[in-house]
Amino acid sequence: MEAKESRTVEQIDRYLQEQAERFVSELQTLLRIPSVSADPAYRADVHRAAEFVRDQLAVAGLKAELVETEGNPIVYGEWCEAPGAPTAIVYGHYDVQPADPLDQWISPPFEPTIRDGKLYARGATDDKGQMFTHIKAVEAWMKTAGRLPVNVKFIIEGEEEVGSKNLERFLESQRERLKGDVAVISDTSQYAPGIPAITYGLRGILACEVTLHGPKQDLHSGVFGGSVANPVNILAGLIGKLHDDQGRVQIPGFYDDVVPLTEKERQQFAELPFDEAAYLQELGVPAAWGEAGYTTTERRWARPTCDVNGFFGGYQGEGPKTIIPSRATAKITCRLVPRQNAEQLTQALHDFLQANCPAGVRLEFKHWHGCDALVFDTESPYMTAARNAIATAFGVPPVFIREGGSIPVVATFREVLGLDTLLLGWGQNTDNLHSPNEHFSLADFHRGIRASAHLWHELSR
Amino acid sequence: MEAKESRTVEQIDRYLQEQAERFVSELQTLLRIPSVSADPAYRADVHRAAEFVRDQLAVAGLKAELVETEGNPIVYGEWCEAPGAPTAIVYGHYDVQPADPLDQWISPPFEPTIRDGKLYARGATDDKGQMFTHIKAVEAWMKTAGRLPVNVKFIIEGEEEVGSKNLERFLESQRERLKGDVAVISDTSQYAPGIPAITYGLRGILACEVTLHGPKQDLHSGVFGGSVANPVNILAGLIGKLHDDQGRVQIPGFYDDVVPLTEKERQQFAELPFDEAAYLQELGVPAAWGEAGYTTTERRWARPTCDVNGFFGGYQGEGPKTIIPSRATAKITCRLVPRQNAEQLTQALHDFLQANCPAGVRLEFKHWHGCDALVFDTESPYMTAARNAIATAFGVPPVFIREGGSIPVVATFREVLGLDTLLLGWGQNTDNLHSPNEHFSLADFHRGIRASAHLWHELSR
Repeated sequence: MEAKESRTVEQIDRYLQEQAERFVSELQTLLRIPSVSADPAYRADVHRAAEFVRDQLAVAGLKAELVETEGNPIVYGEWCEAPGAPTAIVYGHYDVQPADPLDQWISPPFEPTIRDGKLYARGATDDKGQMFTHIKAVEAWMKTAGRLPVNVKFIIEGEEEVGSKNLERFLESQRERLKGDVAVISDTSQYAPGIPAITYGLRGILACEVTLHGPKQDLHSGVFGGSVANPVNILAGLIGKLHDDQGRVQIPGFYDDVVPLTEKERQQFAELPFDEAAYLQELGVPAAWGEAGYTTTERRWARPTCDVNGFFGGYQGEGPKTIIPSRATAKITCRLVPRQNAEQLTQALHDFLQANCPAGVRLEFKHWHGCDALVFDTESPYMTAARNAIATAFGVPPVFIREGGSIPVVATFREVLGLDTLLLGWGQNTDNLHSPNEHFSLADFHRGIRASAHLWHELSR
Repeated sequence: MEAKESRTVEQIDRYLQEQAERFVSELQTLLRIPSVSADPAYRADVHRAAEFVRDQLAVAGLKAELVETEGNPIVYGEWCEAPGAPTAIVYGHYDVQPADPLDQWISPPFEPTIRDGKLYARGATDDKGQMFTHIKAVEAWMKTAGRLPVNVKFIIEGEEEVGSKNLERFLESQRERLKGDVAVISDTSQYAPGIPAITYGLRGILACEVTLHGPKQDLHSGVFGGSVANPVNILAGLIGKLHDDQGRVQIPGFYDDVVPLTEKERQQFAELPFDEAAYLQELGVPAAWGEAGYTTTERRWARPTCDVNGFFGGYQGEGPKTIIPSRATAKITCRLVPRQNAEQLTQALHDFLQANCPAGVRLEFKHWHGCDALVFDTESPYMTAARNAIATAFGVPPVFIREGGSIPVVATFREVLGLDTLLLGWGQNTDNLHSPNEHFSLADFHRGIRASAHLWHELSR
């Protein structure tokens, strides 16, 4: 049995090599679909992307379908013919971030282009490319062995970039059907090129938008200036109050529930290779910045933040225009760490802004979405299986890291389905996810497929 | 002589009544030309507007020409055949503010439309409509009496809304040709409907733009958030530091040279009819705002300000986007009062922003333009002539007021040509100048023409 299984794995590795070019070509087809979930203008494309993923699952040998929701459809596929073997819930998303600013892309965001062994396109790594590795790993088992050594249930959604509003309802309504042992998600990064990683902690997030309404229309800044509150000045002042000069967030209660980093974690973080000068140069910033008393790695992975993602008000064109703008808007996200409560802090943020807002403007607050942070046990058998699979495919064992981003579904999986998640990132955090010129190393793409194929084997042992 | 002159004035009044409709129609033709000087896309239209004004001056009986500059042409016209009589330098501008936000206009900004006795169009009052009154007053004299009782020199420029960059060079190079006794400008407002006004004080201005550069491109706010300075947060904080919680500007030295209002002025201001509740309702703001210790009128006319006219950075579309923006920009203007120095305070503003800017971002500063504030003697013979002319045309004598806006050319006329200026506003400050739905009362338009015609008569006495 062991020998037979070992021959199967060899055949699978050969299949992956033979089919490598076709896998890239099929990924490119998916990347050509501009499935931007934030902008209603792309609704039809979002649907088209879902259909393509469904068809890919079906070709791989799964029973696949589109599950319509109030928003974008969820692609569901399963193969459950390994009784007694563990069941993996594979999650990914086919929606992508908006592509703007368009003028900063070297090749157009939805015309996937290979340069220097990297595939450039919006969604190349986040998350179409990474999600695709698991589909191809399943295909390799099914086409080679005619079976999988574990049961798999794929949930590929289309609203990850806008808060996964309809996923939770789907999970709740399909609780029985979605029973499983562990979730598998590739929507994170390796630690660095050549240093694969398993992510055992994620930051949470809260996302909101605040608009200050002043005069009913833009006013002449000479005729009226000084006698009415300027919504842009006022909102800027409110944003300024969100941090003190040590980079600490000033929302009342913001740090109350934060679990401090252990000394062991701080030491592990410090032992990871990290060239801060190179990091700053790569990002193009003149100096580091952040909460006083913490290293850059700690700030990114394990300390909470409050960032404005977009701010607009008044004249946006060339040259000067002497007006008092009628309104101003800021899009705000906070990254959260374990034990911070997204819902409570959203309210605290609102209350802080409202309390500091003068009578001359009216505050409007929109809450987009939120989720709490998570940390997993690095000693579980699932973690061991993942470590072995990655060691085989990448040639070195992975390091255990945290990640500054949020994957709300990971919290939902724990809450609704009682599952822990294996966060297996094949990309690099320099792949420009959410930025112009997003890309994915083709070598990492193929290693990811192989690691996934071996993961099914390791999980069955 | 007196009797003959009086008959002439009667004939002129009759001419103005007979030609009233044609005057409106000609103004509409001018308003149809989108001569937006801030946006290079309108360059050809700006030139077309200049040509139209030149032709109007020629038809009125002046020697008229276009004077090309490095920017937009200046329209010059003169009639100097009244030796011994005073010479009036009439100034106006044919360029207009940008028309956006377009979706807030009831009728399109460059399709002049009459509703309820008001002419709606960008430039209707600022300044095409008001400037036009003086051309038509000259026409009335020339067509009726074949002469003017004073000498006139018209200077109608096309860069008022972008800082009048080339006007000063023109005035300096034509100092001899432009000799005169008093300048006349209609680019201000009446105090209120039925209360015409002569403006004896103007605020100055400084206009600049600050951009903070952070990462070389937008970054994922999860992966990088907390470890790099966010240019939007930082710029918002800098803007917030520009005022204290009493509405006082915090730029070092900002108030050092301010000439305080006299008790007499404060009393005169207080005696003017002013319904603050109606004012706030008209503007659509929930409450008054401004520098502590001053009335709304004082804040508008005689206290300096610092307003952001436009702010943008990061994602501007629908919904959330989890990025750290690569840069943020604020367009800033300060309104200045007598003895404040625009140049020094521009430097002080720059230094204040730079001093408060952390190392994680790079500050870029653009200085657009600036001019100092002015106050005139209300007892001069020119002021008396203007008061009489207005009393005749409007049926009530004007009040003496100040104005919160800036007319840089008034300072330039004093510096370069040694002239004081009569600021005779025919519009209302509720005419939405610089805002959507700018308009000009046709009754005020016709009264303005008549006041101008009588002014030539009064100045000659």
